[in-house]
Amino acid sequence: MPGFPGKEGWWRLPSGAKNTLCDVPGVTVGQVTCHEGEIHSGVTAICPHGGNIYRDKVRAGVAVLNGFGKSAGLVQLAELGQIETPIILTNTFAVSAGIEALIRQAISENPDIGRETATVNPVVMECNDGWLNDIQQMPVTTDMVKMALHNTAGDFEQGTVGAGAGMKTFGFAGGIGSASRQIICGDGTTFTLGCLVLSNFGVREDLRVCGEQFELNRTESGGEDKGSIILVFATDAPLDSRQLGRLCRRSGAALGRLGSVLGNQSGDIALAFSTAATLDHDEKSAVKQLPAFNENDMNAVFYATVESAENAILNGLWHSSTVLGRNGHKAPAFREVYERRL
Amino acid sequence: MPGFPGKEGWWRLPSGAKNTLCDVPGVTVGQVTCHEGEIHSGVTAICPHGGNIYRDKVRAGVAVLNGFGKSAGLVQLAELGQIETPIILTNTFAVSAGIEALIRQAISENPDIGRETATVNPVVMECNDGWLNDIQQMPVTTDMVKMALHNTAGDFEQGTVGAGAGMKTFGFAGGIGSASRQIICGDGTTFTLGCLVLSNFGVREDLRVCGEQFELNRTESGGEDKGSIILVFATDAPLDSRQLGRLCRRSGAALGRLGSVLGNQSGDIALAFSTAATLDHDEKSAVKQLPAFNENDMNAVFYATVESAENAILNGLWHSSTVLGRNGHKAPAFREVYERRL
Amino acid sequence: MPGFPGKEGWWRLPSGAKNTLCDVPGVTVGQVTCHEGEIHSGVTAICPHGGNIYRDKVRAGVAVLNGFGKSAGLVQLAELGQIETPIILTNTFAVSAGIEALIRQAISENPDIGRETATVNPVVMECNDGWLNDIQQMPVTTDMVKMALHNTAGDFEQGTVGAGAGMKTFGFAGGIGSASRQIICGDGTTFTLGCLVLSNFGVREDLRVCGEQFELNRTESGGEDKGSIILVFATDAPLDSRQLGRLCRRSGAALGRLGSVLGNQSGDIALAFSTAATLDHDEKSAVKQLPAFNENDMNAVFYATVESAENAILNGLWHSSTVLGRNGHKAPAFREVYERRL
Amino acid sequence: MPGFPGKEGWWRLPSGAKNTLCDVPGVTVGQVTCHEGEIHSGVTAICPHGGNIYRDKVRAGVAVLNGFGKSAGLVQLAELGQIETPIILTNTFAVSAGIEALIRQAISENPDIGRETATVNPVVMECNDGWLNDIQQMPVTTDMVKMALHNTAGDFEQGTVGAGAGMKTFGFAGGIGSASRQIICGDGTTFTLGCLVLSNFGVREDLRVCGEQFELNRTESGGEDKGSIILVFATDAPLDSRQLGRLCRRSGAALGRLGSVLGNQSGDIALAFSTAATLDHDEKSAVKQLPAFNENDMNAVFYATVESAENAILNGLWHSSTVLGRNGHKAPAFREVYERRL
Repeated sequence: MPGFPGKEGWWRLPSGAKNTLCDVPGVTVGQVTCHEGEIHSGVTAICPHGGNIYRDKVRAGVAVLNGFGKSAGLVQLAELGQIETPIILTNTFAVSAGIEALIRQAISENPDIGRETATVNPVVMECNDGWLNDIQQMPVTTDMVKMALHNTAGDFEQGTVGAGAGMKTFGFAGGIGSASRQIICGDGTTFTLGCLVLSNFGVREDLRVCGEQFELNRTESGGEDKGSIILVFATDAPLDSRQLGRLCRRSGAALGRLGSVLGNQSGDIALAFSTAATLDHDEKSAVKQLPAFNENDMNAVFYATVESAENAILNGLWHSSTVLGRNGHKAPAFREVYERRL
Repeated sequence: MPGFPGKEGWWRLPSGAKNTLCDVPGVTVGQVTCHEGEIHSGVTAICPHGGNIYRDKVRAGVAVLNGFGKSAGLVQLAELGQIETPIILTNTFAVSAGIEALIRQAISENPDIGRETATVNPVVMECNDGWLNDIQQMPVTTDMVKMALHNTAGDFEQGTVGAGAGMKTFGFAGGIGSASRQIICGDGTTFTLGCLVLSNFGVREDLRVCGEQFELNRTESGGEDKGSIILVFATDAPLDSRQLGRLCRRSGAALGRLGSVLGNQSGDIALAFSTAATLDHDEKSAVKQLPAFNENDMNAVFYATVESAENAILNGLWHSSTVLGRNGHKAPAFREVYERRL
Repeated sequence: MPGFPGKEGWWRLPSGAKNTLCDVPGVTVGQVTCHEGEIHSGVTAICPHGGNIYRDKVRAGVAVLNGFGKSAGLVQLAELGQIETPIILTNTFAVSAGIEALIRQAISENPDIGRETATVNPVVMECNDGWLNDIQQMPVTTDMVKMALHNTAGDFEQGTVGAGAGMKTFGFAGGIGSASRQIICGDGTTFTLGCLVLSNFGVREDLRVCGEQFELNRTESGGEDKGSIILVFATDAPLDSRQLGRLCRRSGAALGRLGSVLGNQSGDIALAFSTAATLDHDEKSAVKQLPAFNENDMNAVFYATVESAENAILNGLWHSSTVLGRNGHKAPAFREVYERRL
Repeated sequence: MPGFPGKEGWWRLPSGAKNTLCDVPGVTVGQVTCHEGEIHSGVTAICPHGGNIYRDKVRAGVAVLNGFGKSAGLVQLAELGQIETPIILTNTFAVSAGIEALIRQAISENPDIGRETATVNPVVMECNDGWLNDIQQMPVTTDMVKMALHNTAGDFEQGTVGAGAGMKTFGFAGGIGSASRQIICGDGTTFTLGCLVLSNFGVREDLRVCGEQFELNRTESGGEDKGSIILVFATDAPLDSRQLGRLCRRSGAALGRLGSVLGNQSGDIALAFSTAATLDHDEKSAVKQLPAFNENDMNAVFYATVESAENAILNGLWHSSTVLGRNGHKAPAFREVYERRL
């Protein structure tokens, strides 16, 4: 499924085979989508690997670009530099469903949780789809989250699907987008960086597509950049949590390229994890050897970050369909407007 | 109900009339307690004022002393320097119930939430009571949270009650504790600082009561300081979010006085709010005047912080009763052991 | 002196009369420039107001977008949310000269410093001009810093002057750039936001000018985005330190628009201050009223931030002259290449 | 030279052979002391290893407990998790001398700095000795810093020496103090943690020595806890920067045990480094293996942190001599008062 066609010379790095998050070996995505009457919402689940994530944690980092958001699990992630559950993306009022589903799944795989060993830190991230979706009805249930967790695979749809079903990006429908880029190190080694976004930010008059201003007639006073964007990055490069945090902090450059100013009410948060090593929950040895990524090669990571994030957002727009939401609200499909405009 | 008797010369600042969080005018606390079979858990709710908190937000700050915890709502609190819901304290696996209850309560008071205006940021903080309580059963429901929210008053019980029902502090039962101190400014103005703790940290051999080592026979290698502590401060002094954050960062000194080293698995988090001004959700004016607290008087705040926190933890111990928990686990009442020991 | 001409529809907000930092009333800038043999360096000093800044401090905030930098004074700024000296911009190895000059100036104006009252927190920010300038010679002296401090005025030159004398931006010469924008609040109130950059970042093949890719032939692996950028914002809007920090965190969007990925070795740091209120060093009253800016109007601030920062960088490029630096290194003037290219 | 005698049962962990920072293999300390008329100041230099630190950097972390301080180099340390110079401790107005000396030393060892390779990030930390020392005279020169750097050895004096010459702790003279503790891991592996403090904080009526309140007659309103404390930790355990930061954040517990509330004007900052691995400035390989410390063993680190910090401060007090400073100010020797009191 080819994504946004791009523009000659705008990007430079090669993408992975699928140009999605799942180009990183072992990473899978599962989704549940609900478009029904006033309800346009859903769940997108991301699994770092196919094993027991609580037992075999992965290193992670985070950057809160704008903290106007209600994500769960970030405090512990920042302290310990790791995640121990899949990542759930959903709407703002379904965070509690996400937390409960992740706890129950972790307990079912690890019956010692909360009894003989510690509890578990569920990671749930969200955007507010309340313009298209009647969020007050809280339609996303723990069962839907569980279903998304059980559906994960190496292929997934983009656009107005999963957690992105009722989202809106620069005034258009959608949604879930993804892309990937190669990390090309100085010694010739290459790794893959994948990005998946839950995109719900921006106003149409701010949008710039590969540098081109989408609307020329703009108001003087600036728009209302509400909404939010969640960016999840995965890589097989052995970045530690500090380096993954540095990676995340580059996301703002991608948002800027698309015309955003990281609006006041936009909870813009980036999370990154590395699949290069797992950390054993029951580790007994005081010291073990871990692969460490050369700081001198971080530029290659940063280029991949900004390109994959920008591409992921545009792919999410590209794959979205028009949504007729609650209260007569309508978010048009970007692709139609974009192609008509050329 | 007199609390821990203290020790001559250990504290210096006068406390408020009740020596609790509710010495700060307008602040109320409500609790639901469950001691039943394997279940020892509950909810403690804190209301900054009696009005509509979503409409009239209060300034707040936070310090994550040790992020091994699962609290919700802190990302937005740190960004915006305010809270817009009551604060719910409960066990680790009841965070989702707390979030859902706070969202539903906010919507019932403000039907425009998520439809005509923004969503809401629920603040829920937790400790793991899994040693005494069978936390896997997730006994705390949204109804229990709502009940705690509706029960709030200016008086409340301490010890093995509310969210503290199944908690353990330095090996003893409990729990919920509270205290208050005066903030005595250089120009003679005084304010009140109240502290309420959900205390679940420390190992018995580390405990120091007003400087006295509780156990003299200790192992060489150090204990396992697990558990967590949540400290909530309220004040009528007009501190802004930055100053409230500075206040919170002093909590570690109080924990140190009691013998803690802020153990690895202990999610030690402090939150503070000021009732001195409210921020209107629908504010239209670009500029308004707000009372600002003199930075040169912050020492008076810091003394009140450390004393009230230390006193609150000891009051929580003092008021706790022995708990016979799941799996034969028993947490003895501190007061009996302490008085026998003298 | 008209700056970079811009592009129809790219920016929307009106700028101030001068389109510089000094559109904010009271803010002045002074510079000392040295182009001599292998030496291409200098100092740029920024004064928040014309009075005694130590006695009448101003509120300030900071964002470290990428901490690969050697700025001084940021730790205290972040803690107290204020600055108490002018801001010195210079090269990396002149930070010590900047610190010493600011201390000596503060003492000469306030002989009680370090004797009867506290010490002083000098704020010095830097970029590495070592490609054009022989930085090892440490040519910038405390006398040069003092001279810049004494030369401050409401007009100043841009380009390869002051601290920007030996800097390089996207491969071109320069430097010091500035711009301003109006903050247009919802109730019709307007304020001014000014930006001054010390710009030393980016590689030529990454540059995008108002969305247009400057070089089409690019290597696949990404360039070496070294150097750094310091962004200083001033405003007469009464933002507090938290809000000023939020403002600063938007700078990354401006860098992204120009094509940067916030490279590994690029110390990208933004500092903002507000002239709307001063804080008395000797304040005795526990409480005073301060003007507070409506959080609901922050979007207007963020639009002004990103536009003024992008414009300031382009103005710095526009006003720069070709520099023949040490060791035969040559940084061409942007304007010539840009106009030839059209 | 035996230090503070301690108190039965107060500490539990074994210390290293010297009970100083230099129990960590390879770590050395050098000092220059100046007691002359109105001048009581100096320099203390800490070298992580005997090689070229710029070429072979060490992992480091930092915690700003209270940012009312003027330290240099912390921004880059936090971003990159490493240090590349020795650490200089001195007085507040000698930070510029410290920076310049470290830059010049680094260039003399690495002539490519600022020419063919990057610049260098000098780490200088400070307290204000202005009560005893006439800090306005800026008596500490770059030559004195260089001398301290060249004098480093595995043994060093404590008390009113080096950077601690004019410092004051809880109203007493001094100063420089040090101690060490073993880190005893679950698998039986042991490491050493050393602490060196530049101690200049606290007021006499707050002091508690091993839990005992030093002064019983105290004012009600609280004292003026000014001054500052810098804590430097070294370890041969392979902690990464995140873990070293966690270690540093435990320092507040040690200050609390001694009676401090981390006063408003007290710049309380902790820095930690690990000698277990070096990071090659010219690293070319994208990936290498590094030893990683088991997070499950962090409690052992935290116990060592709090004990070594508390012991180091008391050792600094113990070894100090009475100082007659500027303007008739006198700081008495702690040991005399303490022994007379028993």
